[in-house]
Amino acid sequence: MKILIMNGPNLNLLGEREPGIYGSESLDSINADLAKRAAKLGVDTEFYQSNHEGALIDKLHAARGVFDAIVLNAGAYTHYSIAIRDAIAAIKLPVVEVHLSNIHARESFRENSVIAPVCAGQISGFGSYSYTLGLYAAIDKAKK
Amino acid sequence: MKILIMNGPNLNLLGEREPGIYGSESLDSINADLAKRAAKLGVDTEFYQSNHEGALIDKLHAARGVFDAIVLNAGAYTHYSIAIRDAIAAIKLPVVEVHLSNIHARESFRENSVIAPVCAGQISGFGSYSYTLGLYAAIDKAKK
Amino acid sequence: MKILIMNGPNLNLLGEREPGIYGSESLDSINADLAKRAAKLGVDTEFYQSNHEGALIDKLHAARGVFDAIVLNAGAYTHYSIAIRDAIAAIKLPVVEVHLSNIHARESFRENSVIAPVCAGQISGFGSYSYTLGLYAAIDKAKK
Amino acid sequence: MKILIMNGPNLNLLGEREPGIYGSESLDSINADLAKRAAKLGVDTEFYQSNHEGALIDKLHAARGVFDAIVLNAGAYTHYSIAIRDAIAAIKLPVVEVHLSNIHARESFRENSVIAPVCAGQISGFGSYSYTLGLYAAIDKAKK
Amino acid sequence: MKILIMNGPNLNLLGEREPGIYGSESLDSINADLAKRAAKLGVDTEFYQSNHEGALIDKLHAARGVFDAIVLNAGAYTHYSIAIRDAIAAIKLPVVEVHLSNIHARESFRENSVIAPVCAGQISGFGSYSYTLGLYAAIDKAKK
Amino acid sequence: MKILIMNGPNLNLLGEREPGIYGSESLDSINADLAKRAAKLGVDTEFYQSNHEGALIDKLHAARGVFDAIVLNAGAYTHYSIAIRDAIAAIKLPVVEVHLSNIHARESFRENSVIAPVCAGQISGFGSYSYTLGLYAAIDKAKK
Amino acid sequence: MKILIMNGPNLNLLGEREPGIYGSESLDSINADLAKRAAKLGVDTEFYQSNHEGALIDKLHAARGVFDAIVLNAGAYTHYSIAIRDAIAAIKLPVVEVHLSNIHARESFRENSVIAPVCAGQISGFGSYSYTLGLYAAIDKAKK
Amino acid sequence: MKILIMNGPNLNLLGEREPGIYGSESLDSINADLAKRAAKLGVDTEFYQSNHEGALIDKLHAARGVFDAIVLNAGAYTHYSIAIRDAIAAIKLPVVEVHLSNIHARESFRENSVIAPVCAGQISGFGSYSYTLGLYAAIDKAKK
Amino acid sequence: MKILIMNGPNLNLLGEREPGIYGSESLDSINADLAKRAAKLGVDTEFYQSNHEGALIDKLHAARGVFDAIVLNAGAYTHYSIAIRDAIAAIKLPVVEVHLSNIHARESFRENSVIAPVCAGQISGFGSYSYTLGLYAAIDKAKK
Amino acid sequence: MKILIMNGPNLNLLGEREPGIYGSESLDSINADLAKRAAKLGVDTEFYQSNHEGALIDKLHAARGVFDAIVLNAGAYTHYSIAIRDAIAAIKLPVVEVHLSNIHARESFRENSVIAPVCAGQISGFGSYSYTLGLYAAIDKAKK
Amino acid sequence: MKILIMNGPNLNLLGEREPGIYGSESLDSINADLAKRAAKLGVDTEFYQSNHEGALIDKLHAARGVFDAIVLNAGAYTHYSIAIRDAIAAIKLPVVEVHLSNIHARESFRENSVIAPVCAGQISGFGSYSYTLGLYAAIDKAKK
Amino acid sequence: MKILIMNGPNLNLLGEREPGIYGSESLDSINADLAKRAAKLGVDTEFYQSNHEGALIDKLHAARGVFDAIVLNAGAYTHYSIAIRDAIAAIKLPVVEVHLSNIHARESFRENSVIAPVCAGQISGFGSYSYTLGLYAAIDKAKK
Repeated sequence: MKILIMNGPNLNLLGEREPGIYGSESLDSINADLAKRAAKLGVDTEFYQSNHEGALIDKLHAARGVFDAIVLNAGAYTHYSIAIRDAIAAIKLPVVEVHLSNIHARESFRENSVIAPVCAGQISGFGSYSYTLGLYAAIDKAKK
Repeated sequence: MKILIMNGPNLNLLGEREPGIYGSESLDSINADLAKRAAKLGVDTEFYQSNHEGALIDKLHAARGVFDAIVLNAGAYTHYSIAIRDAIAAIKLPVVEVHLSNIHARESFRENSVIAPVCAGQISGFGSYSYTLGLYAAIDKAKK
Repeated sequence: MKILIMNGPNLNLLGEREPGIYGSESLDSINADLAKRAAKLGVDTEFYQSNHEGALIDKLHAARGVFDAIVLNAGAYTHYSIAIRDAIAAIKLPVVEVHLSNIHARESFRENSVIAPVCAGQISGFGSYSYTLGLYAAIDKAKK
Repeated sequence: MKILIMNGPNLNLLGEREPGIYGSESLDSINADLAKRAAKLGVDTEFYQSNHEGALIDKLHAARGVFDAIVLNAGAYTHYSIAIRDAIAAIKLPVVEVHLSNIHARESFRENSVIAPVCAGQISGFGSYSYTLGLYAAIDKAKK
Repeated sequence: MKILIMNGPNLNLLGEREPGIYGSESLDSINADLAKRAAKLGVDTEFYQSNHEGALIDKLHAARGVFDAIVLNAGAYTHYSIAIRDAIAAIKLPVVEVHLSNIHARESFRENSVIAPVCAGQISGFGSYSYTLGLYAAIDKAKK
Repeated sequence: MKILIMNGPNLNLLGEREPGIYGSESLDSINADLAKRAAKLGVDTEFYQSNHEGALIDKLHAARGVFDAIVLNAGAYTHYSIAIRDAIAAIKLPVVEVHLSNIHARESFRENSVIAPVCAGQISGFGSYSYTLGLYAAIDKAKK
Repeated sequence: MKILIMNGPNLNLLGEREPGIYGSESLDSINADLAKRAAKLGVDTEFYQSNHEGALIDKLHAARGVFDAIVLNAGAYTHYSIAIRDAIAAIKLPVVEVHLSNIHARESFRENSVIAPVCAGQISGFGSYSYTLGLYAAIDKAKK
Repeated sequence: MKILIMNGPNLNLLGEREPGIYGSESLDSINADLAKRAAKLGVDTEFYQSNHEGALIDKLHAARGVFDAIVLNAGAYTHYSIAIRDAIAAIKLPVVEVHLSNIHARESFRENSVIAPVCAGQISGFGSYSYTLGLYAAIDKAKK
Repeated sequence: MKILIMNGPNLNLLGEREPGIYGSESLDSINADLAKRAAKLGVDTEFYQSNHEGALIDKLHAARGVFDAIVLNAGAYTHYSIAIRDAIAAIKLPVVEVHLSNIHARESFRENSVIAPVCAGQISGFGSYSYTLGLYAAIDKAKK
Repeated sequence: MKILIMNGPNLNLLGEREPGIYGSESLDSINADLAKRAAKLGVDTEFYQSNHEGALIDKLHAARGVFDAIVLNAGAYTHYSIAIRDAIAAIKLPVVEVHLSNIHARESFRENSVIAPVCAGQISGFGSYSYTLGLYAAIDKAKK
Repeated sequence: MKILIMNGPNLNLLGEREPGIYGSESLDSINADLAKRAAKLGVDTEFYQSNHEGALIDKLHAARGVFDAIVLNAGAYTHYSIAIRDAIAAIKLPVVEVHLSNIHARESFRENSVIAPVCAGQISGFGSYSYTLGLYAAIDKAKK
Repeated sequence: MKILIMNGPNLNLLGEREPGIYGSESLDSINADLAKRAAKLGVDTEFYQSNHEGALIDKLHAARGVFDAIVLNAGAYTHYSIAIRDAIAAIKLPVVEVHLSNIHARESFRENSVIAPVCAGQISGFGSYSYTLGLYAAIDKAKK
């Protein structure tokens, strides 16, 4: 089983960016921890981050036939990128939407996820542990 | 560590009610599975279900000083019970909001959770596995 | 054939409460008249009223396997109880929604029925005769 | 007692038009059945159908002094014809609004009836039986 | 003269619950103070609190013929319980709506009171002193 | 100079229809009075009333080259007939919009006139005297 | 009979201000013309203009017992001065609302008149002739 | 193959009406050109124009069994005639919606087409060439 | 202790203006009663009324350092004067907002108070007794 | 004459992606067909597809002075890319907006095209034939 | 060259009023600094502040023919004074709108400026330096 | 001190693109002028333009530790790029938002800036001089 963990805009700054909201762990450290957990479960992982909407779409397309499921934190694109939504719908892989902060407890524009209706499910508000839960959920979805 | 797993209106019918949306597993079977998983991690669990908004509030009040965290599927009350929201805010225990179906992919009135802003986080769309993820998240929150 | 006639909050005050809007007949008198009409058609009836949302949900659940159809005046819960809506959808019995007053001719918040989309149909504005029409409609639905 | 049964746009196609929504009975057959039921109760009936908003208004005006009540399925005009609404308000006869399908369970623009606030009441969702109930309701209103 | 002081959901936690917003006085202590003030004015008082919407409605019904006026803090039900609103309208006693915090200075969903249009008046923002003012207002209304 | 006075749906019932709102004078009597006033000013008048939207459009088209200005009470069509609006815009004659009642002081849906933006001006609320003012305004516009 | 002609903010600049919209006649010249027309009909007139909302309210109050009717162009205050609205409602004199331009054919915020519901009627879009029509309408209202 | 080309209100004035928006070609000239183009492709055409909503509905009904597809410019009815929408849905012929001007680049109320969801497709903004494209599209749809 | 009682637009007409809504007591009589009650409690009072928004702002500014609290009925300015709101926020004195009528039970535009979020609290619906309650509340706030 | 045919995000997956909505023809096959049809008419074509919003803007800029018109299916960017809208407005070439599916008959967020107001026209709902019609329309626009 | 610097309601309290938002510099000190800077550039300045909407309008009118441009901080009137907006449009002088705080980063009602569409431009968020930038901008506009 | 001047989509076409709105000066010429002005003040400048949202985000990230402040014209991304907003919030440098045209005086969708709440301030409407003012503001902010 192979799982792709994707991160969208500004998540490369994790740990440095508004730690009160997003925590002080870096993306590399989160990814390393995820890789270890996945390995224990016999699951391969790959990691991808980009600030470019188009690059994220290209990567989603390329995931077909390579990965069994995707864990995606689309960052701010969550709230308006219908293009990423269409890409998710097109590739027909289970995509688990994750967020570090509880997007339902912040500014009203962050409450709405345009990708949620085409994702398998949403996990929001558990800090870096959201990724761990997302990994478990992705494995569960991939098994079905 | 002690975790309370609460279920709101109509979840007593799980397995019989619209299985296409909510799955065919009964609430008892889900609860038994959760109790087993929790026990393995040395965590005590208690289970509560009610169709009565007031009874759910009473139970939330009673949880203070007894439980370390709560996993809550508030069912339809999720979308309008400001009274349950206030109860959650009042008791100051971490409450993990879970949903069987992806509430962001259904009727528009189900998209909005009035309890989300006072919950620790939200997990939505993974069927009965949402409870498992909710249990892990509640344990993680209780540890902090 | 067995029909359940259910009434929600404040309908126990019928006859005393705002007679200009709701008429001066008491609920008991309406029910007695309905029982007689139903009996003539060889139909059994049972009557239930509660001001408690949870109790109405419990009763709806209990109706499965006992009744062939339900006539429901959910009173004010009509306008916001998604929990009752979900109960109606879950039990899969034909439920006929009735209202004494014409809810489409009053305050704007009374125009919207959150239960209507899962009910068999709606009858509104004919005073106590709304229940008679509701009984006929319930029998007609139960036959199909 | 004399009751007018009026039908608005596209209802002449009943039976042929989207039978999944509107049923497979023709308007003539429904009308014949209504005439028979009314006759048994000693009530005269007349039937009118038009696709023209102006013609429906003219007919409503002409009903004054001739009929005791009206059963009206205004079809799509239900949702925007303030002119028909004004005609109903002007003639001061009880008008019972009926719909074959449950208009509260379809597209959102069908939920709103601009004529409802000036009608005696509304019956919606019982297929061709909506007319039967409408006839009974009209007779009841005409008696008062 | 007899005045009923009613409190809705979560107000049993007063003093413990978010004291920054609701103050640190307990409900018992507030009630004791009100009883004393009322007694001085020759007014009898009774106190009732419930987290159950239905129980509050039952109590409002039971108040007819027993009390001359009611002071009501409906808590979160203020914002959505049309059933409580209808109960207030039905019983025809003067009901004075009170709130500890200034509901017009908080989250936007707390600004709207669905019971306000059927209450005698509203007092909001004076902490436990809101009840004192409410008592005076109820006595004044009862006299008229 | 030749002025066309047009009336839309239900205005044929003037005098009989809701006299509290629309006055007790008949359309014929109003028209006779207008004809007399116009004649004194050396102005020819023609009168037209229809309940049919299409007929009103046909008449507006036919007015080109025959009349110098139009006084129009479009009745309920005022609020939704974009087709009449387009006809007014197409014929390029000054059209004075008149209303018996003050449409800005009634139901909110009557506040909006879809024809107003293409009319020369609007006169509303002066009973049958609105037509007299409309006639004067139409003459004034036709002179320019 | 005595009629007060009142003008609100910026109308003192008439003739100089955006003549494409408001015409090139000055307020003095319009007033002189109105005075002459009124005198012919045996009607006294007084003229008042202010840019101050409070001054307009004071003048409306002072009009009680002195004038039989008022012609009011409230300028921009038309769209938000609930205080002027309340003054009009309080003094119980017929107030005819006039506008030079067609407020229903301009920016959407000009469409709404908060004073319209308490005015006798509205005349809009006839340039300086709106005042003449307003004078006639005020005389007609004062006579009744 | 037989194609019906239908035009709604005010399109009879084409060429004379606001040529800046709708072009200076008359409807007859457009129709003649379409007939010629269709004939070359071995396709029969019929042309129909009416300002009457009801007449357009009657014609749509009559098209069943006679035509293979319809090109429809419903004019202003596009934006509110749910009755025409229902007629299109009822007859089950492919209907191609065309507009001379780009309705998405004009007043906001013209952006919305209530008939679009039941039409085969929409062509908007190409002047009289919109009809030519509509003819091609109708032939293409009829073939399938 | 010194309390300022301020009244906004049209409240000088109290007793004469719409007595059905605002009562038949004059402002002078209300003020005299308040002065007497305050004196008994050893509290000085001053009274101010103006129809001018700017004058009310000037007075609020001047209250700094002179008064301990303010009772304010801002009349219609309650609903739109952000300038008065800013003045209240700027002076940092406790301001108690009072209304004679229940503003939550009238036209929808009266429900919203733009000054409420910066006032200490709101009292609404008790007629002239609202001022008495406001005085008590202001004294209570001033003491803290 | 030279025409550019541009495709936006996810259209590279055509044929594989949700064929029920978008058809089973690949983009290459559609393009080959368009090239052939254009060649027959003596028109040169170029094809461009990108998932990157910025790349589409760069290409639009580069089209100035090279192409006579553009056929653009902007995919999901249609609904929110004001940047592409501004690019179209800036380059002053006729751009024909095309869509495979009828965007007016799908999710409500697909109804709105932010680029439509600056495009020459819109063609929507004819599957791959939408491109053919778009090509004809672009040629027609380029000729003018 | 002569520039008028105008300030609206509550800005006379600058330095004392909510210094966290508006800074601790007084208006006199800001004005003195502006006068000095302007003098260096050979530009005359005049300063005006009022809490009265009408006085601000009178001053704007009086500025015609005296000043070359205006720097205006309209305070709270920014958000609702259409009367000031109309005055700015009427006088045809370049008016530069300035704000101390970033109005786009505060309460939502402060985001909207009703005067912005008729001002030359807007400068917001730079504290007292906003006036300096406003002065430069006004000079630049006056030169053109 | 080092200031970065960034420009978003379509601003590379400045001078050629809609000169009526954006002026006829090219971006290079504006930048050259800014560099000169900055140099006089002893300030270094760097210039960056891209049509790619992702590239703008990358550049913002790279600005940390290199620049003291940023002047940003985000072009159309201003209105929807929450990703750029998050980047600005993340880097914690003062960012001054500038616009050539007055965005508050154009299409309603241009009024809203999603980046404004995280920018230091906004300057809008002064043509190329907006950049000059932005440079001064950025220097002022950087000094603090």
